[in-house]
Amino acid sequence: MHLFYTPDISGNEYLMNPDESKHCIRVLRLQKDDVVRLIDGRGGLFEAVIVTPDPKRTQLKVVNETREYQKRNHNLHIAIAPTKNMERLEWFLEKATEIGIDEISPIICDRSERKEVKKERLDKVITSAVKQSLKAYHPKLNEAIKYKDFIKQLTGQRYIAHCMDGEKGQLKDLIVLEDSYTILIGPEGDFSPDELELALKCQCMPISLGNSRLRTETAALEACFEINFLNR
Amino acid sequence: MHLFYTPDISGNEYLMNPDESKHCIRVLRLQKDDVVRLIDGRGGLFEAVIVTPDPKRTQLKVVNETREYQKRNHNLHIAIAPTKNMERLEWFLEKATEIGIDEISPIICDRSERKEVKKERLDKVITSAVKQSLKAYHPKLNEAIKYKDFIKQLTGQRYIAHCMDGEKGQLKDLIVLEDSYTILIGPEGDFSPDELELALKCQCMPISLGNSRLRTETAALEACFEINFLNR
Repeated sequence: MHLFYTPDISGNEYLMNPDESKHCIRVLRLQKDDVVRLIDGRGGLFEAVIVTPDPKRTQLKVVNETREYQKRNHNLHIAIAPTKNMERLEWFLEKATEIGIDEISPIICDRSERKEVKKERLDKVITSAVKQSLKAYHPKLNEAIKYKDFIKQLTGQRYIAHCMDGEKGQLKDLIVLEDSYTILIGPEGDFSPDELELALKCQCMPISLGNSRLRTETAALEACFEINFLNR
Repeated sequence: MHLFYTPDISGNEYLMNPDESKHCIRVLRLQKDDVVRLIDGRGGLFEAVIVTPDPKRTQLKVVNETREYQKRNHNLHIAIAPTKNMERLEWFLEKATEIGIDEISPIICDRSERKEVKKERLDKVITSAVKQSLKAYHPKLNEAIKYKDFIKQLTGQRYIAHCMDGEKGQLKDLIVLEDSYTILIGPEGDFSPDELELALKCQCMPISLGNSRLRTETAALEACFEINFLNR
């Protein structure tokens, strides 16, 4: 069944915007009484029939509604230094959305070579993954923020994955289940010692993600895997 | 320290081929007595000094040798139906190599849209990930094989991840640790009922990789992650 992302849905009727209407009628060639799926990105999954097929303004009527569809039992926020190669960050966003993530913050670190990201483009990557993997919750992508500003506003369980020496735990030993987590993932050149010190001051627990030397985006996905797996 | 993949190394001396020599001397501008790292792909990690810097035939002398470097306590073989978009399979190979995998078999299934793969190109992807993540063991990539031929030759613990109805277990409940595993991952359209039936006849245990609807390459990486995580 065809799926549309409709964050602006409210009530039992939905008017598709011209782009969606054109896609629905001209491209997919859907007709009156055909049924489509809608997700609102806030946990709502709907089935709707086409009442008025119109390439400019197609009207839908909701016939079935599920709230909190596949609501997860925890909240995962990953703060990741944008990779030099944007494709690697986009890849992470797609995969994390498939596996399960709630919030992503691009953090600009001392050793970040990339200081900015195109949020609009990254949001599109997330939305297409949301549709592809039928997620009723749309992960929230925040604007890029300086590490030192980000770390001050942390709440919940917080972890920093770094490659420097020193004592590190493992998520499976440290986490409290069904809680809120923030995990910090550094740039290609790792966090700076100052950044690590600041994280420790802010009650971030240092963690290891295994013995392998992982790329930034792989480390972020490994953390995402571990949190979801442990809470399953 | 610069790393070179030298599967043909034997003894304490190593002669770089012209390509490596040129890269080493002309590109990296390494000189006499500089030290480099070598991995043989069979568990050997070496430190070697440049005895004769030569853009055509650079001679190295091994000064330090580690055997079974980061040898893992289990063996993981993932059989995956090649994705329509080759980049997705290449991405899986890179990430699986980083996280930990021993053998990959591209399997051609009833619903496979892609019937062949360029093995040489995929091997290059694996080798570059091996170097990037400093793996002393080079994962083995097999030639593409028909599902029905592949499934007959299975040994060790074997699992099939499919999207059809029916009873499924989870790896965390089913696996015996520190063993050999083969996991079957189907194409975009899933395995066919015949293929599933055949797998069950061949003692494959059906598994679920969680509630999310995962792409082929994401499912394969999830399986790779779970096996490594459970054996950690």
